[in-house]
Amino acid sequence: MTDLPAVTVLGLGPMGRALAAALAASGHPTTVWNRSPGKADGLAAREAASLADAVHASPVVLACLVDYAALTSALEPLRADWGDRVLVNLGSGTPAQARATTGWAAARGIAYLDGAILTPTPTIGTPAAVVLCSGGPDVHAAAAGTLASLGGTTTHLGDDPGLANAYDVALLDLFATAVHGVVHAFALAAAEHVPATALAPFATGIGALLPEMITRFARQLDGGTHPGDRSTIASAGSAIRHVTATARGHGLDTGALTAAGAVIDRAIADGHGADGLSRLTRTLLGA
Amino acid sequence: MTDLPAVTVLGLGPMGRALAAALAASGHPTTVWNRSPGKADGLAAREAASLADAVHASPVVLACLVDYAALTSALEPLRADWGDRVLVNLGSGTPAQARATTGWAAARGIAYLDGAILTPTPTIGTPAAVVLCSGGPDVHAAAAGTLASLGGTTTHLGDDPGLANAYDVALLDLFATAVHGVVHAFALAAAEHVPATALAPFATGIGALLPEMITRFARQLDGGTHPGDRSTIASAGSAIRHVTATARGHGLDTGALTAAGAVIDRAIADGHGADGLSRLTRTLLGA
Repeated sequence: MTDLPAVTVLGLGPMGRALAAALAASGHPTTVWNRSPGKADGLAAREAASLADAVHASPVVLACLVDYAALTSALEPLRADWGDRVLVNLGSGTPAQARATTGWAAARGIAYLDGAILTPTPTIGTPAAVVLCSGGPDVHAAAAGTLASLGGTTTHLGDDPGLANAYDVALLDLFATAVHGVVHAFALAAAEHVPATALAPFATGIGALLPEMITRFARQLDGGTHPGDRSTIASAGSAIRHVTATARGHGLDTGALTAAGAVIDRAIADGHGADGLSRLTRTLLGA
Repeated sequence: MTDLPAVTVLGLGPMGRALAAALAASGHPTTVWNRSPGKADGLAAREAASLADAVHASPVVLACLVDYAALTSALEPLRADWGDRVLVNLGSGTPAQARATTGWAAARGIAYLDGAILTPTPTIGTPAAVVLCSGGPDVHAAAAGTLASLGGTTTHLGDDPGLANAYDVALLDLFATAVHGVVHAFALAAAEHVPATALAPFATGIGALLPEMITRFARQLDGGTHPGDRSTIASAGSAIRHVTATARGHGLDTGALTAAGAVIDRAIADGHGADGLSRLTRTLLGA
Protein backbone atom coordinates (compact mmCIF):
# COMPACT_ATOMS: atom_id res chain seq x y z
CA MET A 1 0.00 0.00 0.00
CA THR A 2 1.33 3.41 -0.99
CA ASP A 3 1.73 5.84 1.88
CA LEU A 4 -1.15 8.28 1.59
CA PRO A 5 -0.49 11.96 2.27
CA ALA A 6 -1.40 13.51 5.60
CA VAL A 7 -4.65 15.43 5.77
CA THR A 8 -6.10 17.91 8.24
CA VAL A 9 -9.80 18.41 8.95
CA LEU A 10 -10.91 21.72 10.47
CA GLY A 11 -14.29 21.56 12.21
CA LEU A 12 -15.70 18.52 14.00
CA GLY A 13 -19.41 18.92 13.59
CA PRO A 14 -21.22 15.79 12.31
CA MET A 15 -19.93 16.25 8.74
CA GLY A 16 -16.38 17.13 9.81
CA ARG A 17 -16.27 14.02 11.99
CA ALA A 18 -17.52 11.89 9.08
CA LEU A 19 -14.81 13.33 6.81
CA ALA A 20 -12.06 12.71 9.37
CA ALA A 21 -13.27 9.16 10.04
CA ALA A 22 -13.37 8.29 6.33
CA LEU A 23 -9.92 9.77 5.65
CA ALA A 24 -8.34 8.00 8.65
CA ALA A 25 -10.02 4.74 7.64
CA SER A 26 -8.57 5.14 4.12
CA GLY A 27 -5.08 5.31 5.64
CA HIS A 28 -4.35 9.05 5.59
CA PRO A 29 -2.46 10.24 8.67
CA THR A 30 -5.23 12.53 9.89
CA THR A 31 -5.04 15.63 12.08
CA VAL A 32 -8.19 17.32 13.36
CA TRP A 33 -8.95 20.68 14.92
CA ASN A 34 -12.12 22.17 16.35
CA ARG A 35 -12.67 25.64 17.81
CA SER A 36 -13.73 24.10 21.12
CA PRO A 37 -11.20 21.30 21.81
CA GLY A 38 -11.88 17.78 23.02
CA LYS A 39 -14.21 16.80 20.16
CA ALA A 40 -11.89 14.17 18.64
CA ASP A 41 -12.99 11.29 20.88
CA GLY A 42 -13.57 8.12 18.92
CA LEU A 43 -11.69 9.34 15.84
CA ALA A 44 -8.50 7.60 14.69
CA ALA A 45 -6.95 11.04 14.32
CA ARG A 46 -4.55 13.30 16.17
CA GLU A 47 -6.13 16.39 17.70
CA ALA A 48 -3.90 19.38 16.90
CA ALA A 49 -2.68 21.53 19.78
CA SER A 50 -3.52 24.69 17.84
CA LEU A 51 -4.91 25.84 14.52
CA ALA A 52 -1.38 26.63 13.32
CA ASP A 53 -0.30 23.10 14.27
CA ALA A 54 -3.31 21.70 12.37
CA VAL A 55 -2.52 23.65 9.19
CA HIS A 56 1.20 22.81 9.28
CA ALA A 57 0.51 19.10 9.79
CA SER A 58 -0.71 18.34 6.25
CA PRO A 59 -0.39 19.35 2.60
CA VAL A 60 -4.21 19.27 2.26
CA VAL A 61 -6.47 21.03 4.76
CA LEU A 62 -10.19 20.29 4.52
CA ALA A 63 -12.47 22.78 6.26
CA CYS A 64 -16.03 22.04 7.30
CA LEU A 65 -17.03 24.89 9.60
CA VAL A 66 -20.49 26.28 10.24
CA ASP A 67 -20.16 28.97 7.56
CA TYR A 68 -17.68 31.00 5.48
CA ALA A 69 -17.34 33.70 8.11
CA ALA A 70 -16.27 31.08 10.66
CA LEU A 71 -13.54 29.91 8.28
CA THR A 72 -12.08 33.28 7.39
CA SER A 73 -12.31 34.64 10.94
CA ALA A 74 -10.49 31.55 12.26
CA LEU A 75 -7.74 31.72 9.63
CA GLU A 76 -7.38 35.52 9.38
CA PRO A 77 -5.17 35.99 12.49
CA LEU A 78 -3.12 32.88 11.72
CA ARG A 79 0.48 33.61 10.79
CA ALA A 80 0.85 30.25 9.05
CA ASP A 81 3.14 29.58 6.15
CA TRP A 82 0.74 27.96 3.67
CA GLY A 83 3.52 27.17 1.17
CA ASP A 84 2.15 24.59 -1.24
CA ARG A 85 -0.67 23.64 1.10
CA VAL A 86 -4.18 23.53 -0.32
CA LEU A 87 -7.24 24.68 1.60
CA VAL A 88 -10.43 22.87 0.53
CA ASN A 89 -13.60 24.38 1.97
CA LEU A 90 -16.40 21.80 2.05
CA GLY A 91 -18.77 23.90 4.16
CA SER A 92 -22.08 25.20 2.77
CA GLY A 93 -22.56 28.66 1.38
CA THR A 94 -23.42 30.75 -1.62
CA PRO A 95 -21.57 31.10 -4.94
CA ALA A 96 -20.77 34.71 -4.03
CA GLN A 97 -19.19 33.61 -0.74
CA ALA A 98 -17.08 31.02 -2.56
CA ARG A 99 -15.81 33.62 -5.02
CA ALA A 100 -15.12 36.17 -2.29
CA THR A 101 -13.25 33.58 -0.22
CA THR A 102 -11.15 32.62 -3.24
CA GLY A 103 -10.09 36.27 -3.49
CA TRP A 104 -9.46 36.44 0.26
CA ALA A 105 -7.29 33.31 0.04
CA ALA A 106 -5.36 34.54 -3.02
CA ALA A 107 -4.48 37.76 -1.20
CA ARG A 108 -2.91 35.63 1.54
CA GLY A 109 -1.10 33.23 -0.76
CA ILE A 110 -3.45 30.35 0.08
CA ALA A 111 -4.23 27.88 -2.71
CA TYR A 112 -7.99 27.47 -2.32
CA LEU A 113 -10.53 24.99 -3.68
CA ASP A 114 -14.23 25.36 -2.97
CA GLY A 115 -16.43 22.33 -2.51
CA ALA A 116 -19.89 21.15 -1.53
CA ILE A 117 -21.04 17.82 -0.17
CA LEU A 118 -24.41 16.77 -1.59
CA THR A 119 -25.08 13.64 0.45
CA PRO A 120 -25.66 13.13 4.19
CA THR A 121 -22.97 12.16 6.70
CA PRO A 122 -23.61 8.37 6.62
CA THR A 123 -22.64 8.31 2.92
CA ILE A 124 -19.13 9.72 3.52
CA GLY A 125 -16.55 7.01 2.89
CA THR A 126 -19.07 4.94 0.92
CA PRO A 127 -19.81 4.74 -2.83
CA ALA A 128 -22.93 6.88 -2.21
CA ALA A 129 -20.96 10.02 -1.35
CA VAL A 130 -21.30 12.86 -3.86
CA VAL A 131 -18.88 15.79 -3.59
CA LEU A 132 -18.59 18.74 -5.94
CA CYS A 133 -15.64 21.10 -6.20
CA SER A 134 -14.61 24.09 -8.29
CA GLY A 135 -11.54 26.27 -8.63
CA GLY A 136 -8.25 26.31 -10.44
CA PRO A 137 -7.09 23.03 -12.04
CA ASP A 138 -3.72 23.07 -10.20
CA VAL A 139 -5.42 23.35 -6.83
CA HIS A 140 -7.84 20.62 -7.79
CA ALA A 141 -5.00 18.35 -8.92
CA ALA A 142 -3.27 18.82 -5.55
CA ALA A 143 -6.39 17.85 -3.59
CA ALA A 144 -7.98 15.26 -5.91
CA GLY A 145 -6.29 12.20 -4.42
CA THR A 146 -7.37 13.13 -0.91
CA LEU A 147 -10.94 13.93 -2.01
CA ALA A 148 -11.11 10.51 -3.69
CA SER A 149 -10.70 8.93 -0.24
CA LEU A 150 -14.08 10.35 0.77
CA GLY A 151 -15.64 7.60 -1.35
CA GLY A 152 -18.24 7.88 -4.07
CA THR A 153 -17.96 10.53 -6.75
CA THR A 154 -16.07 13.81 -6.62
CA THR A 155 -16.70 16.04 -9.63
CA HIS A 156 -14.57 19.05 -10.50
CA LEU A 157 -17.06 21.39 -12.16
CA GLY A 158 -14.63 23.97 -13.52
CA ASP A 159 -12.37 26.89 -12.74
CA ASP A 160 -15.04 29.31 -11.48
CA PRO A 161 -14.85 28.76 -7.70
CA GLY A 162 -18.55 29.64 -7.37
CA LEU A 163 -19.69 26.62 -9.38
CA ALA A 164 -19.76 24.05 -6.57
CA ASN A 165 -21.98 26.30 -4.46
CA ALA A 166 -24.07 27.25 -7.51
CA TYR A 167 -24.92 23.58 -8.02
CA ASP A 168 -25.34 23.12 -4.28
CA VAL A 169 -27.82 25.97 -3.79
CA ALA A 170 -29.84 24.92 -6.86
CA LEU A 171 -30.03 21.35 -5.54
CA LEU A 172 -30.88 22.55 -2.03
CA ASP A 173 -33.58 24.70 -3.60
CA LEU A 174 -35.11 21.60 -5.17
CA PHE A 175 -34.68 19.56 -2.00
CA ALA A 176 -36.03 22.18 0.43
CA THR A 177 -39.04 22.96 -1.76
CA ALA A 178 -39.84 19.28 -2.36
CA VAL A 179 -39.52 18.50 1.36
CA HIS A 180 -41.91 21.37 2.05
CA GLY A 181 -44.30 19.75 -0.44
CA VAL A 182 -44.03 16.42 1.40
CA VAL A 183 -44.63 17.80 4.89
CA HIS A 184 -47.41 20.08 3.60
CA ALA A 185 -49.13 17.20 1.78
CA PHE A 186 -49.10 15.16 4.99
CA ALA A 187 -50.55 18.15 6.87
CA LEU A 188 -53.34 18.55 4.30
CA ALA A 189 -54.07 14.81 4.48
CA ALA A 190 -54.14 14.95 8.29
CA ALA A 191 -56.61 17.84 8.14
CA GLU A 192 -58.80 15.55 6.01
CA HIS A 193 -58.33 12.70 8.55
CA VAL A 194 -56.14 10.69 6.18
CA PRO A 195 -53.25 9.04 8.10
CA ALA A 196 -49.77 9.66 6.70
CA THR A 197 -49.12 5.95 6.24
CA ALA A 198 -52.35 5.66 4.19
CA LEU A 199 -51.27 8.45 1.86
CA ALA A 200 -47.62 7.34 1.63
CA PRO A 201 -47.98 4.48 -0.91
CA PHE A 202 -49.57 6.92 -3.36
CA ALA A 203 -47.20 9.76 -2.45
CA THR A 204 -44.14 7.62 -3.18
CA GLY A 205 -45.59 7.07 -6.66
CA ILE A 206 -45.76 10.85 -7.16
CA GLY A 207 -42.23 11.25 -5.83
CA ALA A 208 -40.94 8.56 -8.15
CA LEU A 209 -42.05 10.64 -11.16
CA LEU A 210 -39.45 13.31 -10.43
CA PRO A 211 -36.21 11.84 -11.83
CA GLU A 212 -37.67 11.26 -15.30
CA MET A 213 -39.38 14.65 -15.20
CA ILE A 214 -36.16 16.42 -14.19
CA THR A 215 -34.27 14.85 -17.08
CA ARG A 216 -37.03 15.72 -19.56
CA PHE A 217 -37.40 19.32 -18.30
CA ALA A 218 -33.62 19.83 -18.55
CA ARG A 219 -33.59 18.64 -22.16
CA GLN A 220 -36.55 20.90 -22.98
CA LEU A 221 -34.99 23.92 -21.27
CA ASP A 222 -31.61 23.58 -22.98
CA GLY A 223 -33.42 22.84 -26.27
CA GLY A 224 -35.82 25.76 -25.88
CA THR A 225 -39.01 23.77 -26.56
CA HIS A 226 -41.76 23.09 -24.04
CA PRO A 227 -44.32 20.68 -25.51
CA GLY A 228 -47.61 20.43 -23.62
CA ASP A 229 -48.30 16.87 -24.72
CA ARG A 230 -48.16 15.35 -21.22
CA SER A 231 -49.55 18.10 -19.06
CA THR A 232 -50.03 21.78 -19.61
CA ILE A 233 -49.46 24.85 -17.50
CA ALA A 234 -53.20 25.57 -17.77
CA SER A 235 -54.18 22.19 -16.29
CA ALA A 236 -51.61 22.61 -13.52
CA GLY A 237 -53.26 25.94 -12.72
CA SER A 238 -56.65 24.27 -12.41
CA ALA A 239 -55.23 21.57 -10.11
CA ILE A 240 -53.36 23.98 -7.85
CA ARG A 241 -56.52 26.01 -7.32
CA HIS A 242 -58.30 22.94 -5.85
CA VAL A 243 -55.34 22.30 -3.57
CA THR A 244 -54.99 25.88 -2.43
CA ALA A 245 -58.72 26.21 -1.71
CA THR A 246 -58.71 23.01 0.34
CA ALA A 247 -55.59 23.99 2.30
CA ARG A 248 -56.97 27.46 2.98
CA GLY A 249 -60.25 25.94 4.13
CA HIS A 250 -58.31 24.04 6.78
CA GLY A 251 -56.38 27.13 7.87
CA LEU A 252 -53.09 25.72 6.58
CA ASP A 253 -50.34 28.02 5.36
CA THR A 254 -50.57 28.35 1.58
CA GLY A 255 -47.43 30.39 0.92
CA ALA A 256 -45.67 27.87 -1.31
CA LEU A 257 -48.85 26.97 -3.21
CA THR A 258 -49.60 30.65 -3.75
CA ALA A 259 -46.06 31.25 -5.03
CA ALA A 260 -46.28 28.25 -7.37
CA GLY A 261 -49.74 29.35 -8.54
CA ALA A 262 -48.56 32.90 -9.20
CA VAL A 263 -45.84 31.68 -11.58
CA ILE A 264 -48.42 29.53 -13.38
CA ASP A 265 -50.84 32.47 -13.63
CA ARG A 266 -48.10 34.68 -15.01
CA ALA A 267 -47.18 32.07 -17.63
CA ILE A 268 -50.84 31.75 -18.65
CA ALA A 269 -51.21 35.54 -18.85
CA ASP A 270 -48.12 35.57 -21.11
CA GLY A 271 -49.86 33.09 -23.45
CA HIS A 272 -48.08 29.90 -22.37
CA GLY A 273 -51.07 27.99 -20.92
CA ALA A 274 -50.82 25.26 -23.55
CA ASP A 275 -47.06 24.78 -22.99
CA GLY A 276 -45.51 22.10 -20.80
CA LEU A 277 -44.47 22.76 -17.21
CA SER A 278 -40.76 23.19 -17.99
CA ARG A 279 -41.70 26.56 -19.55
CA LEU A 280 -42.23 27.85 -15.99
CA THR A 281 -38.45 28.12 -15.50
CA ARG A 282 -38.33 30.72 -18.25
CA THR A 283 -41.26 32.57 -16.69
CA LEU A 284 -39.36 32.65 -13.38
CA LEU A 285 -36.40 34.14 -15.25
CA GLY A 286 -38.67 36.84 -16.66
CA ALA A 287 -38.53 35.44 -20.19
CA MET B 1 -65.54 -13.68 -23.60
CA THR B 2 -68.28 -12.44 -21.29
CA ASP B 3 -70.33 -9.57 -22.63
CA LEU B 4 -69.18 -6.49 -20.75
CA PRO B 5 -71.81 -3.94 -19.65
CA ALA B 6 -72.34 -0.75 -21.61
CA VAL B 7 -70.67 2.39 -20.32
CA THR B 8 -71.14 6.08 -21.02
CA VAL B 9 -68.43 8.72 -20.81
CA LEU B 10 -69.47 12.35 -20.34
CA GLY B 11 -66.84 14.86 -21.38
CA LEU B 12 -64.30 14.37 -24.17
CA GLY B 13 -61.35 16.40 -23.02
CA PRO B 14 -58.00 14.57 -23.15
CA MET B 15 -58.78 12.46 -20.07
CA GLY B 16 -62.39 11.71 -21.13
CA ARG B 17 -61.14 10.55 -24.53
CA ALA B 18 -58.55 8.32 -22.86
CA LEU B 19 -61.24 6.79 -20.63
CA ALA B 20 -63.57 6.14 -23.58
CA ALA B 21 -60.78 4.65 -25.68
CA ALA B 22 -59.69 2.28 -22.89
CA LEU B 23 -63.26 1.16 -22.14
CA ALA B 24 -64.08 0.56 -25.81
CA ALA B 25 -60.80 -1.32 -26.26
CA SER B 26 -61.72 -3.51 -23.27
CA GLY B 27 -64.93 -4.51 -25.03
CA HIS B 28 -67.51 -2.31 -23.29
CA PRO B 29 -70.17 -0.96 -25.68
CA THR B 30 -69.23 2.69 -25.19
CA THR B 31 -71.36 5.81 -25.61
CA VAL B 32 -69.84 9.26 -25.39
CA TRP B 33 -71.20 12.76 -24.96
CA ASN B 34 -69.59 16.17 -24.99
CA ARG B 35 -71.18 19.58 -24.47
CA SER B 36 -69.98 20.68 -27.89
CA PRO B 37 -70.73 17.73 -30.23
CA GLY B 38 -68.46 16.22 -32.89
CA LYS B 39 -65.58 15.38 -30.55
CA ALA B 40 -65.88 11.59 -30.87
CA ASP B 41 -63.76 11.27 -34.03
CA GLY B 42 -61.31 8.41 -33.79
CA LEU B 43 -63.05 6.78 -30.84
CA ALA B 44 -64.63 3.30 -31.18
CA ALA B 45 -67.68 4.71 -29.44
CA ARG B 46 -71.16 5.92 -30.34
CA GLU B 47 -71.71 9.64 -29.89
CA ALA B 48 -75.03 10.16 -28.10
CA ALA B 49 -77.61 12.42 -29.73
CA SER B 50 -78.31 14.11 -26.40
CA LEU B 51 -77.27 14.03 -22.78
CA ALA B 52 -80.47 12.12 -21.91
CA ASP B 53 -79.64 9.56 -24.60
CA ALA B 54 -76.11 9.25 -23.16
CA VAL B 55 -77.32 8.64 -19.61
CA HIS B 56 -79.99 6.13 -20.69
CA ALA B 57 -77.52 4.16 -22.82
CA SER B 58 -75.58 2.56 -19.94
CA PRO B 59 -75.82 1.32 -16.35
CA VAL B 60 -72.56 3.11 -15.50
CA VAL B 61 -71.98 6.74 -16.44
CA LEU B 62 -68.44 8.09 -16.02
CA ALA B 63 -68.12 11.86 -15.94
CA CYS B 64 -64.92 13.74 -16.65
CA LEU B 65 -65.93 17.36 -17.08
CA VAL B 66 -63.89 20.48 -16.41
CA ASP B 67 -65.20 20.86 -12.85
CA TYR B 68 -68.01 19.95 -10.47
CA ALA B 69 -70.13 22.94 -11.48
CA ALA B 70 -70.01 21.79 -15.11
CA LEU B 71 -71.30 18.37 -14.05
CA THR B 72 -74.19 19.52 -11.89
CA SER B 73 -75.23 22.30 -14.24
CA ALA B 74 -75.31 19.85 -17.17
CA LEU B 75 -77.30 17.23 -15.26
CA GLU B 76 -79.57 19.59 -13.26
CA PRO B 77 -82.12 20.26 -16.04
CA LEU B 78 -82.08 16.62 -17.21
CA ARG B 79 -85.34 14.76 -16.65
CA ALA B 80 -83.60 11.38 -16.82
CA ASP B 81 -84.75 8.29 -15.02
CA TRP B 82 -81.52 7.26 -13.30
CA GLY B 83 -83.05 4.00 -11.95
CA ASP B 84 -80.16 1.74 -10.91
CA ARG B 85 -77.66 3.72 -12.93
CA VAL B 86 -74.46 4.80 -11.21
CA LEU B 87 -72.79 8.14 -11.83
CA VAL B 88 -69.03 8.06 -11.30
CA ASN B 89 -67.38 11.47 -11.30
CA LEU B 90 -63.69 11.20 -12.19
CA GLY B 91 -63.13 14.94 -12.60
CA SER B 92 -60.86 16.90 -10.26
CA GLY B 93 -62.09 18.88 -7.29
CA THR B 94 -62.03 19.34 -3.56
CA PRO B 95 -63.26 16.97 -0.82
CA ALA B 96 -65.98 19.50 0.02
CA GLN B 97 -67.19 19.52 -3.60
CA ALA B 98 -67.34 15.71 -3.63
CA ARG B 99 -69.41 15.66 -0.44
CA ALA B 100 -71.73 18.40 -1.68
CA THR B 101 -72.23 16.63 -4.99
CA THR B 102 -73.04 13.37 -3.20
CA GLY B 103 -75.83 15.23 -1.38
CA TRP B 104 -76.97 16.86 -4.61
CA ALA B 105 -77.12 13.43 -6.28
CA ALA B 106 -78.91 11.77 -3.37
CA ALA B 107 -81.62 14.45 -3.51
CA ARG B 108 -82.21 13.46 -7.16
CA GLY B 109 -82.12 9.71 -6.63
CA ILE B 110 -78.75 9.35 -8.36
CA ALA B 111 -76.38 6.69 -7.03
CA TYR B 112 -73.06 8.58 -6.98
CA LEU B 113 -69.44 7.52 -6.62
CA ASP B 114 -66.66 10.07 -6.46
CA GLY B 115 -63.28 9.35 -7.99
CA ALA B 116 -59.91 10.82 -8.86
CA ILE B 117 -57.37 9.77 -11.47
CA LEU B 118 -53.80 10.13 -10.24
CA THR B 119 -51.89 9.31 -13.40
CA PRO B 120 -51.68 11.10 -16.77
CA THR B 121 -53.77 10.24 -19.81
CA PRO B 122 -51.24 7.89 -21.50
CA THR B 123 -51.47 5.53 -18.50
CA ILE B 124 -55.22 4.94 -18.89
CA GLY B 125 -55.85 1.39 -20.07
CA THR B 126 -52.35 0.32 -18.97
CA PRO B 127 -51.07 -1.26 -15.72
CA ALA B 128 -49.70 2.16 -14.72
CA ALA B 129 -53.16 3.74 -14.26
CA VAL B 130 -54.01 4.66 -10.65
CA VAL B 131 -57.61 5.55 -9.85
CA LEU B 132 -59.07 6.31 -6.42
CA CYS B 133 -62.74 6.26 -5.52
CA SER B 134 -64.88 6.79 -2.45
CA GLY B 135 -68.56 6.53 -1.57
CA GLY B 136 -71.07 3.93 -0.52
CA PRO B 137 -70.06 0.27 -0.94
CA ASP B 138 -73.17 -0.59 -3.02
CA VAL B 139 -72.37 2.14 -5.52
CA HIS B 140 -68.77 1.05 -5.63
CA ALA B 141 -69.79 -2.57 -6.22
CA ALA B 142 -71.98 -1.53 -9.15
CA ALA B 143 -69.13 0.40 -10.81
CA ALA B 144 -66.10 -1.69 -9.83
CA GLY B 145 -66.11 -3.97 -12.86
CA THR B 146 -66.20 -1.04 -15.25
CA LEU B 147 -63.49 0.86 -13.37
CA ALA B 148 -61.28 -2.25 -13.56
CA SER B 149 -61.32 -1.89 -17.35
CA LEU B 150 -59.37 1.38 -16.99
CA GLY B 151 -56.31 -0.76 -16.26
CA GLY B 152 -53.89 -0.51 -13.38
CA THR B 153 -55.12 -0.13 -9.83
CA THR B 154 -58.44 1.21 -8.64
CA THR B 155 -58.65 1.63 -4.86
CA HIS B 156 -61.91 2.17 -2.99
CA LEU B 157 -60.82 4.30 -0.02
CA GLY B 158 -64.03 4.14 2.01
CA ASP B 159 -67.58 5.39 2.39
CA ASP B 160 -66.79 9.09 2.91
CA PRO B 161 -67.23 10.44 -0.64
CA GLY B 162 -64.67 13.18 0.11
CA LEU B 163 -61.81 10.69 0.52
CA ALA B 164 -60.81 10.31 -3.13
CA ASN B 165 -60.45 14.08 -3.51
CA ALA B 166 -58.75 14.35 -0.09
CA TYR B 167 -56.03 11.99 -1.31
CA ASP B 168 -55.99 13.72 -4.69
CA VAL B 169 -55.50 17.25 -3.33
CA ALA B 170 -52.80 16.07 -0.90
CA LEU B 171 -50.95 14.33 -3.74
CA LEU B 172 -51.41 17.33 -6.05
CA ASP B 173 -50.05 19.48 -3.23
CA LEU B 174 -46.90 17.37 -3.17
CA PHE B 175 -46.67 17.27 -6.96
CA ALA B 176 -47.27 20.98 -7.56
CA THR B 177 -44.84 22.04 -4.84
CA ALA B 178 -42.15 19.61 -5.99
CA VAL B 179 -42.56 20.72 -9.62
CA HIS B 180 -42.18 24.31 -8.47
CA GLY B 181 -38.96 23.22 -6.75
CA VAL B 182 -37.72 21.66 -9.99
CA VAL B 183 -38.47 24.65 -12.22
CA HIS B 184 -37.15 27.06 -9.58
CA ALA B 185 -33.91 25.08 -9.16
CA PHE B 186 -33.36 25.21 -12.93
CA ALA B 187 -34.00 28.97 -12.86
CA LEU B 188 -31.49 29.47 -10.04
CA ALA B 189 -28.95 27.33 -11.90
CA ALA B 190 -29.53 29.34 -15.10
CA ALA B 191 -28.99 32.57 -13.18
CA GLU B 192 -25.60 31.10 -12.15
CA HIS B 193 -24.89 30.13 -15.80
CA VAL B 194 -25.30 26.41 -15.08
CA PRO B 195 -27.14 24.67 -17.97
CA ALA B 196 -30.17 22.59 -16.98
CA THR B 197 -28.69 19.43 -18.49
CA ALA B 198 -25.52 19.92 -16.40
CA LEU B 199 -27.53 20.17 -13.18
CA ALA B 200 -29.95 17.37 -14.08
CA PRO B 201 -27.76 14.33 -13.24
CA PHE B 202 -27.35 15.65 -9.69
CA ALA B 203 -30.97 16.83 -9.45
CA THR B 204 -32.29 13.37 -10.34
CA GLY B 205 -30.28 12.05 -7.38
CA ILE B 206 -32.03 14.52 -5.08
CA GLY B 207 -35.42 13.59 -6.56
CA ALA B 208 -34.71 9.90 -6.09
CA LEU B 209 -34.42 10.46 -2.32
CA LEU B 210 -38.11 11.30 -2.04
CA PRO B 211 -39.84 7.89 -2.05
CA GLU B 212 -37.77 6.57 0.89
CA MET B 213 -38.16 9.87 2.72
CA ILE B 214 -41.93 9.90 2.21
CA THR B 215 -42.25 6.39 3.64
CA ARG B 216 -40.03 7.25 6.63
CA PHE B 217 -41.80 10.55 7.35
CA ALA B 218 -45.19 8.80 7.26
CA ARG B 219 -44.05 6.19 9.77
CA GLN B 220 -42.64 8.92 12.02
CA LEU B 221 -45.79 11.03 11.78
CA ASP B 222 -48.17 8.19 12.57
CA GLY B 223 -45.79 7.01 15.32
CA GLY B 224 -45.37 10.52 16.76
CA THR B 225 -41.55 10.47 16.87
CA HIS B 226 -39.28 12.68 14.78
CA PRO B 227 -35.65 11.63 15.26
CA GLY B 228 -33.05 14.12 14.02
CA ASP B 229 -30.43 11.46 13.32
CA ARG B 230 -30.28 12.03 9.55
CA SER B 231 -30.89 15.74 9.25
CA THR B 232 -32.34 18.29 11.58
CA ILE B 233 -34.74 21.18 11.18
CA ALA B 234 -31.94 23.50 12.34
CA SER B 235 -29.57 22.38 9.58
CA ALA B 236 -32.37 22.69 6.99
CA GLY B 237 -32.85 26.25 8.20
CA SER B 238 -29.20 27.03 7.63
CA ALA B 239 -29.30 25.53 4.12
CA ILE B 240 -32.46 27.32 3.06
CA ARG B 241 -30.98 30.67 4.08
CA HIS B 242 -28.09 30.19 1.59
CA VAL B 243 -30.58 29.29 -1.13
CA THR B 244 -32.94 32.16 -0.43
CA ALA B 245 -30.11 34.70 -0.32
CA THR B 246 -28.74 33.47 -3.64
CA ALA B 247 -32.17 33.47 -5.32
CA ARG B 248 -32.95 36.95 -3.99
CA GLY B 249 -29.58 38.17 -5.22
CA HIS B 250 -30.60 37.13 -8.72
CA GLY B 251 -34.01 38.78 -8.44
CA LEU B 252 -35.81 35.43 -8.54
CA ASP B 253 -39.15 34.99 -6.78
CA THR B 254 -38.55 33.49 -3.33
CA GLY B 255 -42.16 32.94 -2.24
CA ALA B 256 -41.95 29.17 -1.82
CA LEU B 257 -38.53 29.29 -0.14
CA THR B 258 -39.76 31.97 2.22
CA ALA B 259 -42.84 29.91 3.09
CA ALA B 260 -40.72 26.79 3.66
CA GLY B 261 -38.23 28.80 5.72
CA ALA B 262 -40.99 30.32 7.85
CA VAL B 263 -42.27 26.88 8.89
CA ILE B 264 -38.69 25.87 9.75
CA ASP B 265 -38.18 29.07 11.77
CA ARG B 266 -41.44 28.49 13.65
CA ALA B 267 -40.43 24.91 14.48
CA ILE B 268 -37.04 26.12 15.74
CA ALA B 269 -38.70 28.84 17.83
CA ASP B 270 -40.96 26.13 19.31
CA GLY B 271 -37.87 24.19 20.39
CA HIS B 272 -37.82 21.56 17.62
CA GLY B 273 -34.54 22.52 15.90
CA ALA B 274 -32.91 19.20 16.78
CA ASP B 275 -35.88 17.16 15.52
CA GLY B 276 -36.10 15.54 12.09
CA LEU B 277 -37.86 17.21 9.17
CA SER B 278 -41.08 15.18 9.48
CA ARG B 279 -41.83 17.27 12.61
CA LEU B 280 -42.61 20.17 10.27
CA THR B 281 -45.98 18.61 9.39
CA ARG B 282 -47.03 19.02 13.01
CA THR B 283 -45.80 22.62 13.02
CA LEU B 284 -47.93 23.28 9.92
CA LEU B 285 -50.90 21.85 11.81
CA GLY B 286 -50.22 24.23 14.70
CA ALA B 287 -49.07 21.44 17.02
